[in-house]
Amino acid sequence: MSDVITAGMVVIGDEILSGRTKDKNIGHLADMLTAVGIDLKEVRIVGDEQRAIVEAVNSLRAAYTYVFTTGGIGPTHDDITADAIAAAFGVPCTYHPEAYALLEAHYAARGVEFTEARKRMARTPEGASLIANPVSVAPGFNIGNVYVMAGVPSVFQAMLDKVIPTLRTGQKLISEGIHCTFPEGTIGGPLGDIQKAHPETIIGSYPKFDTTGAWTEIVVRSRSREKLDAAVRAVKEMLDSLGQRS
Amino acid sequence: MSDVITAGMVVIGDEILSGRTKDKNIGHLADMLTAVGIDLKEVRIVGDEQRAIVEAVNSLRAAYTYVFTTGGIGPTHDDITADAIAAAFGVPCTYHPEAYALLEAHYAARGVEFTEARKRMARTPEGASLIANPVSVAPGFNIGNVYVMAGVPSVFQAMLDKVIPTLRTGQKLISEGIHCTFPEGTIGGPLGDIQKAHPETIIGSYPKFDTTGAWTEIVVRSRSREKLDAAVRAVKEMLDSLGQRS
Repeated sequence: MSDVITAGMVVIGDEILSGRTKDKNIGHLADMLTAVGIDLKEVRIVGDEQRAIVEAVNSLRAAYTYVFTTGGIGPTHDDITADAIAAAFGVPCTYHPEAYALLEAHYAARGVEFTEARKRMARTPEGASLIANPVSVAPGFNIGNVYVMAGVPSVFQAMLDKVIPTLRTGQKLISEGIHCTFPEGTIGGPLGDIQKAHPETIIGSYPKFDTTGAWTEIVVRSRSREKLDAAVRAVKEMLDSLGQRS
Repeated sequence: MSDVITAGMVVIGDEILSGRTKDKNIGHLADMLTAVGIDLKEVRIVGDEQRAIVEAVNSLRAAYTYVFTTGGIGPTHDDITADAIAAAFGVPCTYHPEAYALLEAHYAARGVEFTEARKRMARTPEGASLIANPVSVAPGFNIGNVYVMAGVPSVFQAMLDKVIPTLRTGQKLISEGIHCTFPEGTIGGPLGDIQKAHPETIIGSYPKFDTTGAWTEIVVRSRSREKLDAAVRAVKEMLDSLGQRS
């Protein structure tokens, strides 16, 4: 399957690891990538430490088609993502002329001083191209297969909307959910046999508990409609044979 | 600081990476560890693939005091965490006699068949000890410095409540938040200088936007009350000098 496009994500920020801020970007990226047929394969959350960021980014960019990062691109001393990405690529981190001009004009128009701190937001690894920020001006950037975006969810989402149309996208994974009135323990054996007999599908099983007791949601995924349908039929026949009422 | 206890977390499950399920366990673990003075340093989310789980668990258990995993310990074919942890430790994965007896009795009492699928939930790496599951019986387990727990949030939380009192805990990181009426770009420079002058504190800065415009929440963290107080005083003096009204 040569058209399988993969991705990794690096979430950067002490505030996520301390629990002070609850991440909202992982689920959004996962949804968006699934929608366009890119497989998110791994996420790493690391703190505001250059060594940790470099290690995560270098591992993931070698392993997957694309890497997306969130967090650490603001104006303060704890925003070290641009430096860390530059270090990961072995290039200097310098003012990006276009980002500098953009920010300078933005603050001039508002009569706000363009402080050294604000100038930090114009720094990118050399060779990076900018990702527009329609919400709060300070851009993200792209270098190699790595896309560096803000951690604030509204800004991250706006930047991602700019990035997604530029990506190579894959053949979309299609899925079908099957309501199963039995608990997982009842159907686990035969469901495993069906997975073995349908290798080009991915069959997931999710335990549910509510006032009716324990039941299961079964989800069959495949890149082929035909293979998906065959596996779904096999699951439904299995459930019928166990006496599930439709 | 010899009493700094660190942790890594591995979240296991295709459903998190596809966006179908939104993780609720990372933030809870982060909160609980912070509360007892254990530093969560890294989180990895991986799919239901043995190679990926082994790699993540082996990296993190070598790097941190403790590793916590969630997900993949149910009865179906896609629940492969016990096998993967056994592979990571190079030991066989076999029925744990105590877990087997527990589950056998549980299903017998309810007149429910103890199927091969349900028996899967009694499997652990050899040498593991059990983590009680007060919600739905099937236990988690501990081997070496790795704690393997369920992905269903209510079950994960109940298991974690059993585990936390058994851990070595560290000197608690204390923190103080400071409301700053200026945007990050205004205070970024002087705040960076304060961080440099107070190396045994961690000063974080979080941009906020609301109807009053852009402001900043500054959070100072330290393991020492004295050092925390000194850094907080320095931040407040800096804000006063910029004309912040109290």
